[in-house]
Amino acid sequence: MLKPLGDRVVIEIIETEQKMIGGIVLPDSAKEKPSEGIVVATGAGRILENGTKTTLETKVGDRIVFSKYSGTEVKYDDKEYLILREDDILAIVE
Amino acid sequence: MLKPLGDRVVIEIIETEQKMIGGIVLPDSAKEKPSEGIVVATGAGRILENGTKTTLETKVGDRIVFSKYSGTEVKYDDKEYLILREDDILAIVE
Amino acid sequence: MLKPLGDRVVIEIIETEQKMIGGIVLPDSAKEKPSEGIVVATGAGRILENGTKTTLETKVGDRIVFSKYSGTEVKYDDKEYLILREDDILAIVE
Amino acid sequence: MLKPLGDRVVIEIIETEQKMIGGIVLPDSAKEKPSEGIVVATGAGRILENGTKTTLETKVGDRIVFSKYSGTEVKYDDKEYLILREDDILAIVE
Amino acid sequence: MLKPLGDRVVIEIIETEQKMIGGIVLPDSAKEKPSEGIVVATGAGRILENGTKTTLETKVGDRIVFSKYSGTEVKYDDKEYLILREDDILAIVE
Amino acid sequence: MLKPLGDRVVIEIIETEQKMIGGIVLPDSAKEKPSEGIVVATGAGRILENGTKTTLETKVGDRIVFSKYSGTEVKYDDKEYLILREDDILAIVE
Amino acid sequence: MLKPLGDRVVIEIIETEQKMIGGIVLPDSAKEKPSEGIVVATGAGRILENGTKTTLETKVGDRIVFSKYSGTEVKYDDKEYLILREDDILAIVE
Repeated sequence: MLKPLGDRVVIEIIETEQKMIGGIVLPDSAKEKPSEGIVVATGAGRILENGTKTTLETKVGDRIVFSKYSGTEVKYDDKEYLILREDDILAIVE
Repeated sequence: MLKPLGDRVVIEIIETEQKMIGGIVLPDSAKEKPSEGIVVATGAGRILENGTKTTLETKVGDRIVFSKYSGTEVKYDDKEYLILREDDILAIVE
Repeated sequence: MLKPLGDRVVIEIIETEQKMIGGIVLPDSAKEKPSEGIVVATGAGRILENGTKTTLETKVGDRIVFSKYSGTEVKYDDKEYLILREDDILAIVE
Repeated sequence: MLKPLGDRVVIEIIETEQKMIGGIVLPDSAKEKPSEGIVVATGAGRILENGTKTTLETKVGDRIVFSKYSGTEVKYDDKEYLILREDDILAIVE
Repeated sequence: MLKPLGDRVVIEIIETEQKMIGGIVLPDSAKEKPSEGIVVATGAGRILENGTKTTLETKVGDRIVFSKYSGTEVKYDDKEYLILREDDILAIVE
Repeated sequence: MLKPLGDRVVIEIIETEQKMIGGIVLPDSAKEKPSEGIVVATGAGRILENGTKTTLETKVGDRIVFSKYSGTEVKYDDKEYLILREDDILAIVE
Repeated sequence: MLKPLGDRVVIEIIETEQKMIGGIVLPDSAKEKPSEGIVVATGAGRILENGTKTTLETKVGDRIVFSKYSGTEVKYDDKEYLILREDDILAIVE
């Protein structure tokens, strides 16, 4: 499994249904990047300038919304994941 | 519901009445972005470099004015929300 | 009323007399932006990295001079205000 | 009088004698910006991240040399002043 | 051996299998930069503004995934290594 | 005399011997900027975010080497000086 | 001798053997900048925001690898040196 470092989080991307504008199915390239995902692993936290370590707000299983163009795509065991900093996560979908 | 992270706030956008310039109703694209909204959820606060957590100044139900181009639009349950950092909120309308 | 957040201040802009260059009254767009105003509301202060909150130097009623292109214009109750950070205020006119 | 905020200083600009290059008196626009001045008011100091306030090194009456393009020109009581941060002051001329 | 300084890590790059797009083996220059590696040495840690030193999360032998264009390539004893900051390492592959 | 502020230093520039490239004496404008000087005055030090003041490493009389394009030229009593931050000084020539 | 200030280090550059690409000896200008050197002097360390001073990791005699385009070249006693910050040193070659 991927164990993220520091304040990073690994998520599985939730493909939102194909976008239709005026009835035409968009070619893949123009499709709005998916911005929802499920947390599959969380880092140990960020070290502050006074030496203490923060704990992350998100936990495994959380459904989240994130800034569309953040993070790095990583392929592992033939599955696509996104590794991003928790600061790029906007909200948890409860 | 959307639970914002850190120092973020979720707001519902208040559409200000359509802008008229010289009597012509502006096409949607040119309409000045709305800059008023109602707070619907607030984050737990920002972690400072000494490890303490700030509490946010705004609370659910506050009517606010914010910097026009800040935040990220998110659609949830077919409703449009804006998620922005509290630092982008200019004032509370009392 | 507008209650500014953090280290922000709400001011009412003082229109300096119309600028005349060579006797011609300037069209509105070219008019030098006014840089004087009266403080009508002040924020609660900025939170420092050690958790303490600063108190602002300006207070309601102060006449101030500010960096010309700072702040955000906000219309409230049909009146124009400018919301800016206290750090953009150069001096109090005593 | 102008009371500067924070770590700012108000100075009266000393017009250095007109610059002569090859005997021709320079038109006003090309004249090197004056970089000397007299301090007429000093701010209360800058607030540090631990909450303490610095005291400024310069005092009223000091003759100073400053980085040529720093500060903001302000006209007050028909007199030209420059408001700049103390950090833009290079040295005191003793 | 290479002993990295501060919060840096030395890794041996794992060449991922040649990329095939439409059946054509890519010329070397266009091949996606490898982003996996094995840690061969770790630095002593980063000094924080309060003087304490952080300890690194990764250790020798860890298999890691890193941001593709980070780090500096160094040739030592005829072998290629990459020296990068731990902050550029996304996750440990467990 | 010029008393520099904060972490600044006043130096007298040592004109290194004229640069000869291929036997031609370079016109003044192309001459490599001199990068050696003698310290003639030092500031009181920089205030850190915890309120303490640093003491400078250089002292009057030190011969130094500095980054070529740093500092501001100031003419005082018909003599050219350079005022620069101590951080732009590379080394003391012992 | 050159005594570097703060967190700087003086190194003697080790000219790596001339680079051959396809058998042609590269003209001097295109030659990859050398990135190895020997430490000949180290600074007293960097002052942190809490006032304490860091000690450098490298010491005189260390053979090091550094980021190719960092530092400033200085000629002293007809010898070429490079003065760079320790943070630009990637690793010590043990």
